[in-house]
Amino acid sequence: MITPSHLALVPFVSVENMMRLVHHVGLETFLKELAVEIEADFKRWPIFDKAPRVPSHSDVGVIELMPTSDGELYGFKYVNGHPKNMKEGLQTVTGFGLLADVNTGYPVLFSEMTVLTALRTAATSAMATKHLARPNSRVLAMIGNGAQSEFQTIALKAVCGIDTVRLYDIDPAATEKCAANLAGLGITIVKCSSPEEAIEGADVITTATADKEMQTILTDNMVGNGVHINAIGGDCPGKTELHRDIVARASMFVEFPAQTRIEGELQQMPLDHPFTELWEVINGTAAGRKDAAEITLFDGVGFAIEDFAALRYVQEKIKGTTFFKELDMIADPDDPRDLFGMVLRAK
Amino acid sequence: MITPSHLALVPFVSVENMMRLVHHVGLETFLKELAVEIEADFKRWPIFDKAPRVPSHSDVGVIELMPTSDGELYGFKYVNGHPKNMKEGLQTVTGFGLLADVNTGYPVLFSEMTVLTALRTAATSAMATKHLARPNSRVLAMIGNGAQSEFQTIALKAVCGIDTVRLYDIDPAATEKCAANLAGLGITIVKCSSPEEAIEGADVITTATADKEMQTILTDNMVGNGVHINAIGGDCPGKTELHRDIVARASMFVEFPAQTRIEGELQQMPLDHPFTELWEVINGTAAGRKDAAEITLFDGVGFAIEDFAALRYVQEKIKGTTFFKELDMIADPDDPRDLFGMVLRAK
Repeated sequence: MITPSHLALVPFVSVENMMRLVHHVGLETFLKELAVEIEADFKRWPIFDKAPRVPSHSDVGVIELMPTSDGELYGFKYVNGHPKNMKEGLQTVTGFGLLADVNTGYPVLFSEMTVLTALRTAATSAMATKHLARPNSRVLAMIGNGAQSEFQTIALKAVCGIDTVRLYDIDPAATEKCAANLAGLGITIVKCSSPEEAIEGADVITTATADKEMQTILTDNMVGNGVHINAIGGDCPGKTELHRDIVARASMFVEFPAQTRIEGELQQMPLDHPFTELWEVINGTAAGRKDAAEITLFDGVGFAIEDFAALRYVQEKIKGTTFFKELDMIADPDDPRDLFGMVLRAK
Repeated sequence: MITPSHLALVPFVSVENMMRLVHHVGLETFLKELAVEIEADFKRWPIFDKAPRVPSHSDVGVIELMPTSDGELYGFKYVNGHPKNMKEGLQTVTGFGLLADVNTGYPVLFSEMTVLTALRTAATSAMATKHLARPNSRVLAMIGNGAQSEFQTIALKAVCGIDTVRLYDIDPAATEKCAANLAGLGITIVKCSSPEEAIEGADVITTATADKEMQTILTDNMVGNGVHINAIGGDCPGKTELHRDIVARASMFVEFPAQTRIEGELQQMPLDHPFTELWEVINGTAAGRKDAAEITLFDGVGFAIEDFAALRYVQEKIKGTTFFKELDMIADPDDPRDLFGMVLRAK
């Protein structure tokens, strides 16, 4: 065997190591710090290379690549979305991602991103909620109690001070699972038997449902003034969660408009429907919530910069830890022109 | 630790294992079988999802994602191109790639692709040469004796029966390296001190140079009738190898026109410059070489389907071997909605 050079070895964070890292840092601290990192990258939004993700659609789902770069680091995520997976005992969304050095093109971090995507999606909702919800929002209605629901709840607790969650899912077993997982984590849990019941008295509503079709999880007459909505389950063409009228009534905030237009609630609205880019609110160049009666809507679909920030965060946090192993991923012969010689000598 | 399910584990072929696999199969056999697999995918070209690769350019290079799918398998490659790397002791091109199940979105193979890209690029040139060069072509002029040169030579020997290689590089040390590596591999080696000398009597010319600018490695008056040219070094915007007049005089064959237009020799030609898609020649729906005097030009830039075929081949060849290890890359909780519970229980 030829010993690879250090550049040939890429730190790899497995699922097991990601979970160890989360507990090492502490779940709430992890979500808080992650939201800070995402916010930092939203603040410097204009410097990033941005494009809608690159999808490969099939009848049953989508596989997407989400690249971006800040000029020094390049990152991308591979992620799938297969709503039917759940019935087969599989994850709806799985993923992994990578950071590379723009100057050399060599990868510098390879990581699982099923767990990390769940964390960054929750941290992004929490960041949006912090900037858009009424101050002192305390009650969350969590509609859709699947894989993302507990992450959303804990991130909103950690970042925004949510102290009560009202759970609803069309499948009561999902609500039971969510309630059991959240028990003992310092949040009051109310299990509800209808969306109407769940949003009673809610300051913040998060919808995270997974059916790949146009849904109306929330209709206009259900939603009172002043709430903030995170609509994060609609994230591909033909998949929305809110009735058009409620979208029309709310002030809409989006990540990357060209992608939200294709994938978000925005896809059901006319081309001239107004929206604000969330990074401008965070950056202070656009207004967020105008008054306590306004309905704010974060039409979240997930954007590459959030994954980039998450990978940056993981890269920083694993330094000096044992939460990674090195992968012999890149061929790096002593003489760069002698790749063939390296192969020959391996015989 | 929670033991991951088998779906959470993705076979990973490291650089070391890729080299072991190559020697286990035999280098020439590997290249021959790889050319057959690539040919098989060129024959079913219309069924693939095809798009130009997704580049992220910087001043010093490019990082690209190259996805494709045949409807059952999805594949992509990450690859960089940094011509200045060589002077820094790094590879100009490195890469890795992945296959996933379209039905579930779950990865099924993760592999190094620095070595594999070198092999598939050579196998693709050999496949093109087999279909386009004059029968009984025996002499190869190899212009540019960098990391790709020996792979090209051995692939053309294995697939097309080339028995003599005439080497030229602006750096004589590169020619010495190439000649030393090829010694004893059953091919007659002639070291040349100019491009003119190298192409004397050549049936096939391969140009594989790496400068990121417009070059004229070959000018029109240098090239005699009847040769086949593989121009594979020009593979990004602003990077070409041939003088325009020779491109104009040759019959051009390309991989995916939308990508070749951006990256290949085709970028220096008018929009109505004629070309033939290589897959149609292989499929029998378009003519290849028309007569012994014609100059044929494979304007190779590398396309995702070639990587897809290479990954399929590796997936097949590692079955029952020890040339991979399993990576805990995908989170796969027992209850797919219970990702959070899996994270909690890992504490």
